[in-house]
Amino acid sequence: MDEPLDVTFADIEAARVRIRESVFQSPFAFTESLSKRVGAKVWLKLENLQMTGAFKERGAANKLLSLTPEQRKQGVIAASAGNHAQGLAYHAERLGVRATIVMPEGTPLIKVSSTKGFGATVVLHGANYDEAKEHARMLQAEHGLILVHPFDDPFVIAGQGTIGLELLEQNPYLDAVIVPIGGGGLIAGVACAIKEVNPKIKVYGVEARAIAAMRASLDSGSLITLPPGRTVADGIAVRTVASRTFRMVQRYVDDVVTVEEEEIAEAILLLLEREKTVAEGAGAAPLAGALTGKLPLAGKKVGMVVSGGNIDVNLVSRIIERGLIKSGRMMRIVLILPDVTGALAGLTRVVADRKGNVIQIRHDRASLQGNLAEAIVELTLETRGFEHIEEISEALEKGGYRIVEKESDT
Amino acid sequence: MDEPLDVTFADIEAARVRIRESVFQSPFAFTESLSKRVGAKVWLKLENLQMTGAFKERGAANKLLSLTPEQRKQGVIAASAGNHAQGLAYHAERLGVRATIVMPEGTPLIKVSSTKGFGATVVLHGANYDEAKEHARMLQAEHGLILVHPFDDPFVIAGQGTIGLELLEQNPYLDAVIVPIGGGGLIAGVACAIKEVNPKIKVYGVEARAIAAMRASLDSGSLITLPPGRTVADGIAVRTVASRTFRMVQRYVDDVVTVEEEEIAEAILLLLEREKTVAEGAGAAPLAGALTGKLPLAGKKVGMVVSGGNIDVNLVSRIIERGLIKSGRMMRIVLILPDVTGALAGLTRVVADRKGNVIQIRHDRASLQGNLAEAIVELTLETRGFEHIEEISEALEKGGYRIVEKESDT
Repeated sequence: MDEPLDVTFADIEAARVRIRESVFQSPFAFTESLSKRVGAKVWLKLENLQMTGAFKERGAANKLLSLTPEQRKQGVIAASAGNHAQGLAYHAERLGVRATIVMPEGTPLIKVSSTKGFGATVVLHGANYDEAKEHARMLQAEHGLILVHPFDDPFVIAGQGTIGLELLEQNPYLDAVIVPIGGGGLIAGVACAIKEVNPKIKVYGVEARAIAAMRASLDSGSLITLPPGRTVADGIAVRTVASRTFRMVQRYVDDVVTVEEEEIAEAILLLLEREKTVAEGAGAAPLAGALTGKLPLAGKKVGMVVSGGNIDVNLVSRIIERGLIKSGRMMRIVLILPDVTGALAGLTRVVADRKGNVIQIRHDRASLQGNLAEAIVELTLETRGFEHIEEISEALEKGGYRIVEKESDT
Repeated sequence: MDEPLDVTFADIEAARVRIRESVFQSPFAFTESLSKRVGAKVWLKLENLQMTGAFKERGAANKLLSLTPEQRKQGVIAASAGNHAQGLAYHAERLGVRATIVMPEGTPLIKVSSTKGFGATVVLHGANYDEAKEHARMLQAEHGLILVHPFDDPFVIAGQGTIGLELLEQNPYLDAVIVPIGGGGLIAGVACAIKEVNPKIKVYGVEARAIAAMRASLDSGSLITLPPGRTVADGIAVRTVASRTFRMVQRYVDDVVTVEEEEIAEAILLLLEREKTVAEGAGAAPLAGALTGKLPLAGKKVGMVVSGGNIDVNLVSRIIERGLIKSGRMMRIVLILPDVTGALAGLTRVVADRKGNVIQIRHDRASLQGNLAEAIVELTLETRGFEHIEEISEALEKGGYRIVEKESDT
């Protein structure tokens, strides 16, 4: 007989009832273009449309609604610079519970102000997350607050599990569900909800390879703490999963795969461009995992949890640019321009004749790369694919322009 | 007694039944952050989540499903490089109807390939939309095809009107609805559906000021054809509305306001950043209109139709960059660097000390702007607001760096 787990199906059902009036049932939308791309029938659970832009509200609301009146008066505290902070702050404010959030110093202002915007007190402390967490524990003890852990808490896990119930109701015919893994709270809850109802449905987890603590722990059979790692999926950059989420994943999850940074970025761009939806790295990880081909999804009905959409728009802009270059829709080219009258006009004529659309030109006289009679020009062009890029490059070379650098498919 | 219109409430109800199995009922999501921003309770009708990324499927599907078996065999044709092309191609393929789409030459490859991807035959012809339309008429006559106009067709208008019925069902307590206007098919249908059920609900239209044919026609009391105009909301850049949509707007619409390009861009960025949803210019126009303050929305329950999400990601990237600069979250600064060893290192130290995050550096020796012993440096920094920008600028000047250009709030 298996040893009992900390969260049961009944806990998730209870969470569902508890948070029903507080958390929005997000859409579970079929997507034809991603279905073609993945070679399966794909539905997206759009948790990025939650009020604070991520699923974390579910666990936070379930925890808050489970507190006794006395505990509510004490107030809650958490260490987080991300979605957990905002989800907890938002629901605490709605319920009239005081919330204190500890964030590391140097947290982007936008995260601080949006958490404050939900009425929480924000304390900036520590150089990193671990130091912030330590400070939160100290404040908790000092002021008698209730600590709400982002994943290592049965009420939080049960709250996240309500997504599993919604998936079953929104499409009971699913063959597989793919969920991102950070600390494991989301997948533990979702997998429990799904497997206890229908063990035929596969549950897969996806981690960023840069910091795949669950995969490492599964491989070694015990909890592994990884060194710090950086990933575009910052929401799931967790160095140690919890013992209780680990055991639930061992029990319920069919496989955990890892994805590369480039794969996550590509998935973010696909969701943006084809699905018109903004996913953060963690939210795009399930799609990235499906596209690796590591999971047996061919022809299956697959639900993916787009867990959140809180991504820095600056990063979005960089991902778009890189994606355009990788797919042949943008090129950067550096070339040498003979320093004669009309040389630049001639160059732009060659490009225009080949229907290249100039986005940016930088003209740099007397650079070190050319001799003093020449100038360096950097062109950024919108293009129609790799053939188009080749066509333009050849026309430029035929026109006497020497190409010194070309960035198209890096 | 008013003269009869070409589309009645019964036509819209019939369209609803006809397209029910073909077109997705899109979510109508409440948004807390935009509600605060607008000073009203705001819901978004997410038509950008339709399979082809826009509401145009509704009219196209209704038209196709209204054809006789003989007409279906003849096949359909349309001139469009946009959402109408994709919506018609998609539903024609599903119904086994041959579709021909005429697009102007020079249409971006991505639009051609995605329309072909839905099984349509694409004919590239003409230097602009009017020439493509002329060619479509010729092909129609020559091959006995059925022309499907993007807005000047009662079945198309009735199809778009189904959005009005969904709004009433998804939230019957609305005080106002805001709809973008191009040729007027969408607002004509939606306004008829809503006003015939509940005349208390206000219906407002929004046009881009650069090409506001409906506003001009309302002002003059008759159809006005405008000269060509360019707008970031290309989906509603229509030079002449239809007589039938004009009369419906005169009858049913409470007000039509215009918005500037900057306002549309700001609304696109807000939807992306706060709502995690990708809207094209037309889809963001209702929010832009609400934010102008020209509409009496204070404290009201307001539904906005996010009509589509088919925006060039390249444009998204540019809108993000400009938005960051306008809101003080990014700055570009050009300064003169004394040409001595360590000058660049000193500069980056000053920036790092003030916690500016360097995105890009361009270092340009012997530029024309400086003398030969100096160099020009262009810095792009991620910043925390206008105060932070001032702080960094002052520190640079104190450090002996001469600022020659600064782009922060343009």
